Amino acid sequence: MSVLIDQQSTQHQPLPVRLARRIDRLQPSPIREILKVIDQPEMISFAGGLPSSDSFPQLSVEGFDHQQLQYGATEGDLALRKYIAEDLGRRSLHVSADQVLILSGSQQGIDLVAKLMVEQGTRVAVESPSYLAALQVFSLFGAEYLSYTPDTITDLQRRSPALTYAIPTFQNPTGHCYSAAQRSQLAQVCDANGSVLFEDDPYRELCFGDCNRQPVCSLLERTSWIYQSSFSKVLAPGLRLGYLVCSPDLYPTLSWLKQAADLHSNRLSQHIVLQQLLEPGAVQRLQRVNQRYKIKRDAFALSLQQYFSDIACWQVPDGGLFFWLTLSTDKKIDTRQLLQQALQHNVAFMPGEPFFPAGSQSASCFRLNFSHATPEQADRGLCVLSQLIREVI
Amino acid sequence: MSVLIDQQSTQHQPLPVRLARRIDRLQPSPIREILKVIDQPEMISFAGGLPSSDSFPQLSVEGFDHQQLQYGATEGDLALRKYIAEDLGRRSLHVSADQVLILSGSQQGIDLVAKLMVEQGTRVAVESPSYLAALQVFSLFGAEYLSYTPDTITDLQRRSPALTYAIPTFQNPTGHCYSAAQRSQLAQVCDANGSVLFEDDPYRELCFGDCNRQPVCSLLERTSWIYQSSFSKVLAPGLRLGYLVCSPDLYPTLSWLKQAADLHSNRLSQHIVLQQLLEPGAVQRLQRVNQRYKIKRDAFALSLQQYFSDIACWQVPDGGLFFWLTLSTDKKIDTRQLLQQALQHNVAFMPGEPFFPAGSQSASCFRLNFSHATPEQADRGLCVLSQLIREVI
Repeated sequence: MSVLIDQQSTQHQPLPVRLARRIDRLQPSPIREILKVIDQPEMISFAGGLPSSDSFPQLSVEGFDHQQLQYGATEGDLALRKYIAEDLGRRSLHVSADQVLILSGSQQGIDLVAKLMVEQGTRVAVESPSYLAALQVFSLFGAEYLSYTPDTITDLQRRSPALTYAIPTFQNPTGHCYSAAQRSQLAQVCDANGSVLFEDDPYRELCFGDCNRQPVCSLLERTSWIYQSSFSKVLAPGLRLGYLVCSPDLYPTLSWLKQAADLHSNRLSQHIVLQQLLEPGAVQRLQRVNQRYKIKRDAFALSLQQYFSDIACWQVPDGGLFFWLTLSTDKKIDTRQLLQQALQHNVAFMPGEPFFPAGSQSASCFRLNFSHATPEQADRGLCVLSQLIREVI
Repeated sequence: MSVLIDQQSTQHQPLPVRLARRIDRLQPSPIREILKVIDQPEMISFAGGLPSSDSFPQLSVEGFDHQQLQYGATEGDLALRKYIAEDLGRRSLHVSADQVLILSGSQQGIDLVAKLMVEQGTRVAVESPSYLAALQVFSLFGAEYLSYTPDTITDLQRRSPALTYAIPTFQNPTGHCYSAAQRSQLAQVCDANGSVLFEDDPYRELCFGDCNRQPVCSLLERTSWIYQSSFSKVLAPGLRLGYLVCSPDLYPTLSWLKQAADLHSNRLSQHIVLQQLLEPGAVQRLQRVNQRYKIKRDAFALSLQQYFSDIACWQVPDGGLFFWLTLSTDKKIDTRQLLQQALQHNVAFMPGEPFFPAGSQSASCFRLNFSHATPEQADRGLCVLSQLIREVI
């Protein structure tokens, strides 16, 4: 048991609290402090994975049955689960509605899978870098990491993680989209080493190029798997709705864990999301969103070229929400310190360090979201940021 | 590591999955299977803690700023947190908005507190019986229970749980409301043995009598504490919204755990709930709800008297949603089996066994919700149930 004493902040001198040891491994995410400041009107934020506010649908509670304000089923509302199963079938992932579990956002899926599989010393294979809030959860439960990149997937063949976590499509933070060959490799490796594949796929709809986006889970032949996605990026994050599907052997346990976590997900959000998905103009709406994002991405790429071409390198992503920059310097730059300076100049971005699993080498990298700021704001913010970096280098 | 193989339910013969050991301790709650059947129109349900559907407010998304569909702060929207802090101040629990953490329903608070404090072997003091889904979560994380009743609180003085979980006001499942003396005792015991008090208070507004409902946390002088409540019972469960407040030493860690669990709670629900709380008629609305519940409770008590007076005993609760019946028989009745029979007769109730912590003696008890069914349905359902029980006895 670890002991936490914080004498300053309580009225009475508190007694020592016997916290669980896992709390020693708990790190706050930089997202949290940044989400607090992005509401400031003068802030130019490249930080969160924030969809553009002008992409949000018009809200309506029309057709919402008063009865749905009652408690609902842990698994989620059946009509939505059926829609999701059919939609995934069109993407080569053939599942029934019985395999769909509605989540209160896909972050919750990470929590449930960690509870299912991760305890002190559990080996979890993760991309390096990977989604920081997934690392946060796996570490909390005691994961030991085996790290890989899309180019070193086959190295996992000889190792035996219990769980392999991957974001094959427009990866967070790198924006990388796995090739068909990389997808096959990942599936084969998991089938061979027996690790459960946990595929996180929130960005697949935000696509501006011609990419293979087939779920890797659809290529598996033997091992168990969990696939999850989110409505935060294509509809609205504030509705906090996502889902997972999984091989049938894992479903009962995951649904019990969901029940223990929050009984069931928000029913009003489930209604609104299904209504939006069924709208005749839903496909066109998404196309318009992607057209706007592509324009933003292209403008962002131009500004990057102007201000960063001699101090950093990057790939232009074919989808998703992020550019991932690596500074071209031998000096190792702590981008968390850089963030503190940038915030003082009203520019927010996401430092690179928290994206690297413990034990993996972090370079001087950081993540820039291109979807939230206007092109004019982005240009201004990138100019400010590049000047700050030149001073540091 | 435990191994789960389920050969029947997957297409390919799956590889063995290395689950976390905690999954061995995971029990599904009977709530889950019962929630699946209560939507059937012919079912008379005394099972869930279901508020009456006619108590739900009219939904409106008026005044909802489109910007609020964006990601929000982990802690919750400030206006709602301020309202809650002021409201608690009027109940003698003096906190600032900085101590309020908005939850996706109060079940989530149990998950967060368990992550904070409970690991294999952690001693947790709980009432016997207690809320079954709290026991489910504490057990998942490895709790060992010290059980007590409102009459044996002082026994905890000589023991040293890390955490004490209590539902002092209209307890679930018993309906008991702690007296002023019992509240003082509980606070003194926690201050003396140094356990963190986790007070769960979802029913306090559903009050039909003259009861002391002062939060026990407001009586503490030394030990750390967490107090939580829910909007499920007074507004609508489908909105999945609750909150916790805690001593300042625990707040940062709990908010990180909240972030790791689901980033933040549904912003549309936060808007709707605050709008409802600020409505000029909110107090009158609640009074009307309570009048209706009181009428239902009284009718329920009459039906119980008619059908159960010679086979069970119970207390008429001054608030909350439940009657707790103990069968007057020497024979030990497994009320889970009784439930299966009752469901075949379209009557649902909550068996008593899952409310008792492991190692505590469970008698032939069961819980009946009186708020969901109409008085006519309730009378019919109780008649059926009493006949079934007579056959079993």
